[in-house]
Amino acid sequence: MSLLIVGTMAFDALETPFGKVDRIIGGSGTYAAWAASNFVQPIKQVSIVGGDFPQEEISALEARGVAMEGVEVVKDGKSFFWSGRYHLDMNTRDTLVTDLNVLAQFDPKIPDSYQGAEFVMLGNLAPDIQKKVLQQLKKRPKFIILDTMNFWMDVALDGLKEVLKMVDLLMVNDSEARQLGGEHSLVKSARKIQAMGPKCVIIKKGEHGALLFYEDRIFSAPALPLEDVFDPTGAGDTFAGGFIGYLARINDVSFEHMKAAVIVGSAMASYCVEKFGPTRLKEITAADIDSRVNDFVTLANFEVR
Amino acid sequence: MSLLIVGTMAFDALETPFGKVDRIIGGSGTYAAWAASNFVQPIKQVSIVGGDFPQEEISALEARGVAMEGVEVVKDGKSFFWSGRYHLDMNTRDTLVTDLNVLAQFDPKIPDSYQGAEFVMLGNLAPDIQKKVLQQLKKRPKFIILDTMNFWMDVALDGLKEVLKMVDLLMVNDSEARQLGGEHSLVKSARKIQAMGPKCVIIKKGEHGALLFYEDRIFSAPALPLEDVFDPTGAGDTFAGGFIGYLARINDVSFEHMKAAVIVGSAMASYCVEKFGPTRLKEITAADIDSRVNDFVTLANFEVR
Repeated sequence: MSLLIVGTMAFDALETPFGKVDRIIGGSGTYAAWAASNFVQPIKQVSIVGGDFPQEEISALEARGVAMEGVEVVKDGKSFFWSGRYHLDMNTRDTLVTDLNVLAQFDPKIPDSYQGAEFVMLGNLAPDIQKKVLQQLKKRPKFIILDTMNFWMDVALDGLKEVLKMVDLLMVNDSEARQLGGEHSLVKSARKIQAMGPKCVIIKKGEHGALLFYEDRIFSAPALPLEDVFDPTGAGDTFAGGFIGYLARINDVSFEHMKAAVIVGSAMASYCVEKFGPTRLKEITAADIDSRVNDFVTLANFEVR
Repeated sequence: MSLLIVGTMAFDALETPFGKVDRIIGGSGTYAAWAASNFVQPIKQVSIVGGDFPQEEISALEARGVAMEGVEVVKDGKSFFWSGRYHLDMNTRDTLVTDLNVLAQFDPKIPDSYQGAEFVMLGNLAPDIQKKVLQQLKKRPKFIILDTMNFWMDVALDGLKEVLKMVDLLMVNDSEARQLGGEHSLVKSARKIQAMGPKCVIIKKGEHGALLFYEDRIFSAPALPLEDVFDPTGAGDTFAGGFIGYLARINDVSFEHMKAAVIVGSAMASYCVEKFGPTRLKEITAADIDSRVNDFVTLANFEVR
């Protein structure tokens, strides 16, 4: 099966209690592609970068089966840049700098060679941009997941609600789910979001794992209890990439397979946070992934007699 | 296998967003006995009550196989009374009244007929009282679990550390684990608590479930995602009762069985919160428990291909 990913490819500057990096590769599309390419190829990447984006990064992704025809390169422009500082608990962070740069002019064009993608991941971007991507697809994909954030609920709620009607699954964190659903109870908020369009909702709870709402059923996935989180940047995008990459490989969106996909996404995210940026994602092998998934089996599975 | 439970039998006055009760049966020993008696009998109850404690409550527990020889009745005394009000989020509460009454003179005496109990649950009480119970047991039980709270860490830390050396499992909530272990990371705090004595630690995280630390292994159990929690009072004691009741029935304290016991405890707690006090615990049948445990299988188990 083929997978289309729309998201940012960018530079980040990060500061965590464990250290600091001034300029490292980042972006939702980057993390998602690194994670998903472990499970499915080709990946049809849609993004925009400046002339400063390193050719070796693009080549490394191409070597993983990530097609770059849909990635616009603005030679005299600068790539999107984000800088943030994490608090001691690693659950909260301050944004220090957001330089949109070429992202301000992002008007995604879907190449003909990308048509027919069965699985689509719409990374966190303006709802209008997400909608433009879907409108260019000639055949309705089998499964579309949407990532978004509180910022778009604040400034583009109507646009977000339009896109919500067009997708199969929404992925948000717990506070975003409460904001969008309008209920303190995550169950009630998820039900309200489902009524807005997507039959599935994933609520990410950080160190407390994730909840999958699939029609009227619920799956609760744990997070791997880690002694230290080195850098949480990209964990959500990595989760999304692992999740949809696995689904695309299995080519089945039943509840049972989606549960497994949540675990695979969680396993990928648990690797992501071990080093700065996507560094760790570039190192891990299929055997590493199997081993981490088995850790989740020990962690979560049980049998009552 | 036989189970010895030490805990309070009391009256509670409760106020939640859903309603109010002025005087209802409560106490850690009461909740634990109702939960555990679904799995194992006899239960050897150790507690103290005043002459005001209803005979029909005692008879109802006796009919469930709960022995009352170790429950001291102070005819001219009043039973322990606690009153609290829950906040809207149900995770926090204010204590309005704590009348120790007969609990102030509690000096537990273990009857000869209670000797030889293989499983012991020490409900939340002063560490000195918990120690007195263990010192009276002629044969070291197979498995001892200890419940405690932040109050005893504040006022009786040395005593608590003494008892910790004598038990197999400590059960606390997340903030208590952080206070006792001295680390923000629950994993690090659990490791430090294990170094104080108990080879197992259960950390209850409310709506986020529970973590079991078993030697160097970890199990993460979800909480049942509920649209409404009617009254959280006694949920922790009910969890403990279901947990040790199941373990005592299986008579095996391996990691695999302890995982199942955490799920059974969680299932019992999920019933407890549906009505005020122990009301719901008195209604449910073996079929109800099986059904709820199956809900947890759907909720938490998965298979990755």
